[in-house]
Amino acid sequence: MRDVAIIGIGQTPVDEHWDRSLKELAGEAIFAALNDAGREIADALFIGNMLSGILSKQENLGGLISDWIGLPGMEALKIEAACGSGAAAFRAALMAVSSEDVDSALVVGVEKMTESLPIETTEALATAADADYESAQGLSFVAINALVMQLYLHTYGWKHTDFAPFSINAHANAMHNPYARLHEKISEKEYISARMIAEPINLLDASPTGDGAAAIFLVPADTILSVNKRNIKVVGSASATDSIAIHSRHDPLWLSAAELSAIKAYQQAGIKPQDIDFFELHDAFSIMSVLSLEACGFSERGQAPKLGLDGQITINGRIPISTRGGLKARGHPVGATGVYQIVETVQQLRGEAEYTQIENAKVGMTQNIGGSGATIITHIFRAG
Amino acid sequence: MRDVAIIGIGQTPVDEHWDRSLKELAGEAIFAALNDAGREIADALFIGNMLSGILSKQENLGGLISDWIGLPGMEALKIEAACGSGAAAFRAALMAVSSEDVDSALVVGVEKMTESLPIETTEALATAADADYESAQGLSFVAINALVMQLYLHTYGWKHTDFAPFSINAHANAMHNPYARLHEKISEKEYISARMIAEPINLLDASPTGDGAAAIFLVPADTILSVNKRNIKVVGSASATDSIAIHSRHDPLWLSAAELSAIKAYQQAGIKPQDIDFFELHDAFSIMSVLSLEACGFSERGQAPKLGLDGQITINGRIPISTRGGLKARGHPVGATGVYQIVETVQQLRGEAEYTQIENAKVGMTQNIGGSGATIITHIFRAG
Repeated sequence: MRDVAIIGIGQTPVDEHWDRSLKELAGEAIFAALNDAGREIADALFIGNMLSGILSKQENLGGLISDWIGLPGMEALKIEAACGSGAAAFRAALMAVSSEDVDSALVVGVEKMTESLPIETTEALATAADADYESAQGLSFVAINALVMQLYLHTYGWKHTDFAPFSINAHANAMHNPYARLHEKISEKEYISARMIAEPINLLDASPTGDGAAAIFLVPADTILSVNKRNIKVVGSASATDSIAIHSRHDPLWLSAAELSAIKAYQQAGIKPQDIDFFELHDAFSIMSVLSLEACGFSERGQAPKLGLDGQITINGRIPISTRGGLKARGHPVGATGVYQIVETVQQLRGEAEYTQIENAKVGMTQNIGGSGATIITHIFRAG
Repeated sequence: MRDVAIIGIGQTPVDEHWDRSLKELAGEAIFAALNDAGREIADALFIGNMLSGILSKQENLGGLISDWIGLPGMEALKIEAACGSGAAAFRAALMAVSSEDVDSALVVGVEKMTESLPIETTEALATAADADYESAQGLSFVAINALVMQLYLHTYGWKHTDFAPFSINAHANAMHNPYARLHEKISEKEYISARMIAEPINLLDASPTGDGAAAIFLVPADTILSVNKRNIKVVGSASATDSIAIHSRHDPLWLSAAELSAIKAYQQAGIKPQDIDFFELHDAFSIMSVLSLEACGFSERGQAPKLGLDGQITINGRIPISTRGGLKARGHPVGATGVYQIVETVQQLRGEAEYTQIENAKVGMTQNIGGSGATIITHIFRAG
């Protein structure tokens, strides 16, 4: 098993890209990553995508994108794990390089969500939940998360307002990220009075969808680390699952797949939660930030809102999250999100995060979630 | 990099399984593979599937299936490469085990295609082609292959009748496979007079869709090969792509991704085409059998129909193909097909193929194709 490092990153802004197709977005991010890596080709391409079949009537993205980027012939395929597709594709690429089966790999997460009718996008996103026991009952994906948040507020006695810091922090950080979907600073008052979506989740608890692509170039660590300080080592990688339907879980307020994958990743990296300098978590809804922080050991059970209220999640706090805007404000092009998280982590570890740079950031963690906690992939990275 | 071996296989019949859901079919095949391997758990599950999002409104199959089989928590995700999804999932599992990241892996290919309206299935299958430049022009998937077959007949001067042996052989072999969709011996006369689908492809040139699942259990070869003669070693594995649209290829009659992936697999195995005892190829349409045989070095360019006419593709011929019925008669549950091919290859190499057993079969090859040659995955296996 070989150690693997990231030597190139690229991304498109998350936006309504009505003028660009899926393959064009993917290509833009890939070319940026190739350029950043100083490479022209890769042995294999791993594509994270959830919705192209349903929304763009296009599967077989491997052939489509490898041809578009001018590398027909290369190995290429798509990995799908709902909103966790991006990190799942990254992990597949990681295993391919570490198995010595390929000597370099590109990962691209790409999603195109804004050209379809909102009802079509909502229906497509519901395929992340249990089709027979959740979606068929009329539960949309946001409604499932709303039930979880209701239960959390009830069980631990928090008020909705206590979740405001998560949204405010994400929006504040996104102000300085040119690739973010929303550049809009928000106040607690705006958070409280935002339009209700599915009680208690309001518009400012929920992440916006979007079109976008992010890409990464991976190589064996021993081939490059000595010559370039911008290279980032992957020191932990793990994926775990939980029941797809929330009602099948012993404790709907505990992300057991987050805990399982984080523990594995900590072990691989030989570290503990307190060694993590920042955490790009999956804040698709503010309740998910809270559940992730608890499952990964950054807070006692039921107490993560306190981290927000105490200012611990901001750039200068104990455990900064959503440092480039997170899903909440950078935007959530679902199958691309996991790759955006890793790209942003590399920016922090390289010291390229500008106005939201965390001082002396050495170890970063990402967590990407497919469904309401059904598939969770956790990675830990270290500056080279 | 560790060598990897198959120690368990399982499958459901390919059929119209209206009484069983996607996860139930997958579970049936997985339990059979676990039972065959004498194991109860695996570290990871790789799922080959193409159409669940479109036809069953269900993505996130990792969480769904791992929970259903009673192994919530395990790593699990879906790989999509159109009709090549099965072998792509197998290859991802292979890399995971060989990277030492996991010590055992299950692969399941599963597809459910017969509960939707035929037009829905046809539309869904068209997502394997180029959505903008092929499907949007009204070209169905069979129509694309019909254009290729027209060109082949015209270029090399063959008659449609010359393709009869491929269909006759597949149907004859499927008679002895209890898991096959069609148990119906056919004659040349029936082949010639079959109903036209898209000229020159008639009903007996085309493979039937179906519901089904096939599963495989993989472990590092050095942990088991000494104790069990039923274990089959993976000695070659490669994947390659070509442009997704036929019209973008320099030569629409040459499967360059088949050639590329086969050459790599031969090199890894240290063998030549003449060392292959049988070949489970992707006979979705009879023209595809011909193009595969040529690209993989079993025939001169433009001459593969001769292999059929000379009786070389039957069980006792030089290069037996579709030995358990192939896609043509075992059936083609698209994302599952690549795993069925490998399961059947293991049966041959173990000497468990009964009435269609190839004498002294030591080395078998499989080739799974996504789209009309856009993504092609080739594997070579050797009896332990």
